[in-house]
Amino acid sequence: MSEQITLYSNVASPYTHGVELALLEAKVNFKKFEVNLKDKPEWYTKVNPVGQVPAITYGGPDVPPDQPSPESVKLRESTILLEFIAERFPEARLLPQDLVLRAKARLFIDIAKTKLLPAWFGCFRKGEPVEAVFVALEQLQELLPPTGFVVGEWSIADAYISGILPRAEIVFENNLNQSGWTEGQGQEIMAVLRGPRFARLTQYTQDLTARPSFKATFDKPAMTDMYKRLFASRAAAQKQ
Amino acid sequence: MSEQITLYSNVASPYTHGVELALLEAKVNFKKFEVNLKDKPEWYTKVNPVGQVPAITYGGPDVPPDQPSPESVKLRESTILLEFIAERFPEARLLPQDLVLRAKARLFIDIAKTKLLPAWFGCFRKGEPVEAVFVALEQLQELLPPTGFVVGEWSIADAYISGILPRAEIVFENNLNQSGWTEGQGQEIMAVLRGPRFARLTQYTQDLTARPSFKATFDKPAMTDMYKRLFASRAAAQKQ
Repeated sequence: MSEQITLYSNVASPYTHGVELALLEAKVNFKKFEVNLKDKPEWYTKVNPVGQVPAITYGGPDVPPDQPSPESVKLRESTILLEFIAERFPEARLLPQDLVLRAKARLFIDIAKTKLLPAWFGCFRKGEPVEAVFVALEQLQELLPPTGFVVGEWSIADAYISGILPRAEIVFENNLNQSGWTEGQGQEIMAVLRGPRFARLTQYTQDLTARPSFKATFDKPAMTDMYKRLFASRAAAQKQ
Repeated sequence: MSEQITLYSNVASPYTHGVELALLEAKVNFKKFEVNLKDKPEWYTKVNPVGQVPAITYGGPDVPPDQPSPESVKLRESTILLEFIAERFPEARLLPQDLVLRAKARLFIDIAKTKLLPAWFGCFRKGEPVEAVFVALEQLQELLPPTGFVVGEWSIADAYISGILPRAEIVFENNLNQSGWTEGQGQEIMAVLRGPRFARLTQYTQDLTARPSFKATFDKPAMTDMYKRLFASRAAAQKQ
């Protein structure tokens, strides 16, 4: 029998979604526990001392998620969890055998993590120019082969970006921001993303979201409603 | 015969230093080429389209570093190069076999990359509070075992931080900054780093810098002179 795995998750979190997809694609039995990030349970620091999602407990006795065992290993940081899952379940081939392709998958993740995400957050939170988002997306697009996924077969690189791109679309399509965008500004960004400059990325995003594991874990209308409420509550908090 | 490896380097770069240490510890034959970052040669975009160091060429014909072959693989980003070297030369055991320890090595690198470095740069470049540096260093210190390296044996986690901590010390010890620190401010920070709050980290840094590969690649007086000149030229550029 395999060691138990419990994923501590939040439905809004792009990082958690990527990890969940990797677990699903590896056909791993795991429990999932939704952490309320606005009112975190006290015991959660036992799972992740820095309090973020995703985190997993691995091994130890089979306990309820809200009573984590001191005997389980606690792991955090989505990119590290993705590597761990790929290594723990090698038969799922979530990373290729070829070392150069492995480096390519990791470079894709690194650009998404260190270039795309800061640019995206800077854009909708602080009103920074969207061009930095486009530049990061172009760097990602350049790494894509003519068809298919980042390294051919679906890998942890695709898992990671699957949590991000569809959520970015919701933000832009619905003009969700905390930086006083004008009416239609998000939709204008979305038009660029759907235009010729990002034709390959658009096809790639369609391939990502057509994956059964993705469809099973992403309800776009519900996610849109949730994000609208999230941004409305942030706006209300800013006004106070 | 092994594929050729050429490391494109810059002596000031903490990231390059970590990669060079990993290559040395793996006893790999490699060429090293110093890239002038102030006046980058035009051909360097063939090695790294984003222009940064470190980068490596791997395989292809044996060519002079300033005439990179289209037949070699080009790899970039220090953390990805470290993973690549660990995987390419498994006999060097630059990552442990144990999956949980591998995750620990990667978490250490991730905290250094995403928490420590931004805090350190924010501190000496923008005058942001040093407390963020201390918090990141505490997170790193908490991951250390009572003695020895991050995962026991020396690993890519130790390689990565070996490029950073000794350079941070030079910056603090010599009050090097671009944000108008008062006289002695850097030295006060250094006193905290050498005090009881960071006793374990101090021992660890001594272990890192006692390593023969480190000693062979780090000339502290020369590095100090070089950093002083670098900060002086930045200060002159700011005044213009």
